[in-house]
Amino acid sequence: MAESKSGFTPQNPGFANRVQSSFAQQSVMNLIGAELVKVLPGEVEILLPFRDNLTQQHGFLHAGIITTIVDSACGYAALSLMPADASVLSVEFKVNLLAPAKGERFVARGMVVKPGRTITVCSGEVFALGSEELKLVATMTGTMMTLQGRPGVTEG
Amino acid sequence: MAESKSGFTPQNPGFANRVQSSFAQQSVMNLIGAELVKVLPGEVEILLPFRDNLTQQHGFLHAGIITTIVDSACGYAALSLMPADASVLSVEFKVNLLAPAKGERFVARGMVVKPGRTITVCSGEVFALGSEELKLVATMTGTMMTLQGRPGVTEG
Amino acid sequence: MAESKSGFTPQNPGFANRVQSSFAQQSVMNLIGAELVKVLPGEVEILLPFRDNLTQQHGFLHAGIITTIVDSACGYAALSLMPADASVLSVEFKVNLLAPAKGERFVARGMVVKPGRTITVCSGEVFALGSEELKLVATMTGTMMTLQGRPGVTEG
Amino acid sequence: MAESKSGFTPQNPGFANRVQSSFAQQSVMNLIGAELVKVLPGEVEILLPFRDNLTQQHGFLHAGIITTIVDSACGYAALSLMPADASVLSVEFKVNLLAPAKGERFVARGMVVKPGRTITVCSGEVFALGSEELKLVATMTGTMMTLQGRPGVTEG
Repeated sequence: MAESKSGFTPQNPGFANRVQSSFAQQSVMNLIGAELVKVLPGEVEILLPFRDNLTQQHGFLHAGIITTIVDSACGYAALSLMPADASVLSVEFKVNLLAPAKGERFVARGMVVKPGRTITVCSGEVFALGSEELKLVATMTGTMMTLQGRPGVTEG
Repeated sequence: MAESKSGFTPQNPGFANRVQSSFAQQSVMNLIGAELVKVLPGEVEILLPFRDNLTQQHGFLHAGIITTIVDSACGYAALSLMPADASVLSVEFKVNLLAPAKGERFVARGMVVKPGRTITVCSGEVFALGSEELKLVATMTGTMMTLQGRPGVTEG
Repeated sequence: MAESKSGFTPQNPGFANRVQSSFAQQSVMNLIGAELVKVLPGEVEILLPFRDNLTQQHGFLHAGIITTIVDSACGYAALSLMPADASVLSVEFKVNLLAPAKGERFVARGMVVKPGRTITVCSGEVFALGSEELKLVATMTGTMMTLQGRPGVTEG
Repeated sequence: MAESKSGFTPQNPGFANRVQSSFAQQSVMNLIGAELVKVLPGEVEILLPFRDNLTQQHGFLHAGIITTIVDSACGYAALSLMPADASVLSVEFKVNLLAPAKGERFVARGMVVKPGRTITVCSGEVFALGSEELKLVATMTGTMMTLQGRPGVTEG
């Protein structure tokens, strides 16, 4: 089984499949062209190639699109450590925008800081890649909640 | 000139055109189908009809898309009170997700809490509308920054 | 029973006593000289007279002391709507500092935005009062958690 | 000159004295018994021994006191990279409370994530130390602002 640097042990041996199948149901990821590229216990990465139709008024990636990929990366990092029958919900997050999001592609990394039965705290980073070196463009701190036993919600 | 309930007086008499032309350059708004529906001094509303391709794994609007519209609503509320030659940048925001974002359409309202020469603090709300009554699904607190004199950035 | 403007109905008829007795156990409130001055369902106010020994380097109230009173105001606003045997825990909060905290006394108001079985979202404000008019110096958005059935923690 | 792991180069060769003399003016630090224990370029640590009069209702350190030390640690980490004639102001911060703050002493560490001319983004951590191992009890993300040329404020 894949081991994260963080040393978390997943409760659900099928955590990677669980994350992949839930990600496949996030239709917004298909709209923007984002892909799930890494799933470890407590750590998930999502890749987003730049597209002109994802931008704000200065031609950079819109902060909401940055949030879309890093929120999912954090949520799935949390889900990777939850029981097999659980689902994940974002309770709240804070995003800091550190530099203009310009680049050829972007990687959002979500990492579990503190897992919990009900509440899991995650940390996220978004990097821009291009002709220049890797650049940190945003950070997130998010609170994720474990949902269990709610048919119609917890199956996703 | 339009008067907001908040009683702010815009520095730029052409603030509404300034906001509209900048919004028109946010190509992501076109991708998701969002429209600017209200521009008052210190208060902006953006409307987003529900679409299946904007959802997360449970079929609700993705938190990142909620953030996209409420970040722009807050940013433009801030811009409406800035000088004519200024541009606006999101420094950071926090979003709380209060209820599942299900509905036929969504309205994001951004309001200036405290305008400033460099930093403007805004408050945002996202409501879901549908067969049921109006429902508050998310709140934002955001810090916006005034940019002046940066060619290539401040013209947008 | 006291009615808040917000129209929340408390589950615990003895909510005000519950809040007062828990507040009396917060020894830091005694250290800084803070008093509980209002307890309504979903709304709590704490008063703090200015003292020289609570300041930062410019002689204004330290942001951490502002946070101390508004976090407790928000936490107790949440507790006022919880079951009689519950206790409250702050999960996270964000504070925006809008103006220098100078004044003769300060009032922190905590209000429930969205109560929930596990998670309650609150909004807080801190006002400075003095020779000048009332001034909003800080806002908070906080996530509070209901604790039940944890002896040694839930009795406080 | 002291070198931080982060590799930041201070603009002000006297940054450590600048931080120490400003810290000495924060009278709240004296009230609670906090000490400045490390000042590197972009990294500051504050130590706080546990005291009974700093607690909330369960006998743990109040979240506002945790915030007091980590806000100052972050603010001074930012100040350490600012020009000699600048002062620092907290614009906003978010704190996540990860575990009950019980211990014999607490260390708040503030680190610069992204320095800037106007805005500096910092990250903070608070650890509890005691008979048990070091435990992370809280994290902060904060936005700090550079103040220059405001007599009466920027001298502190």
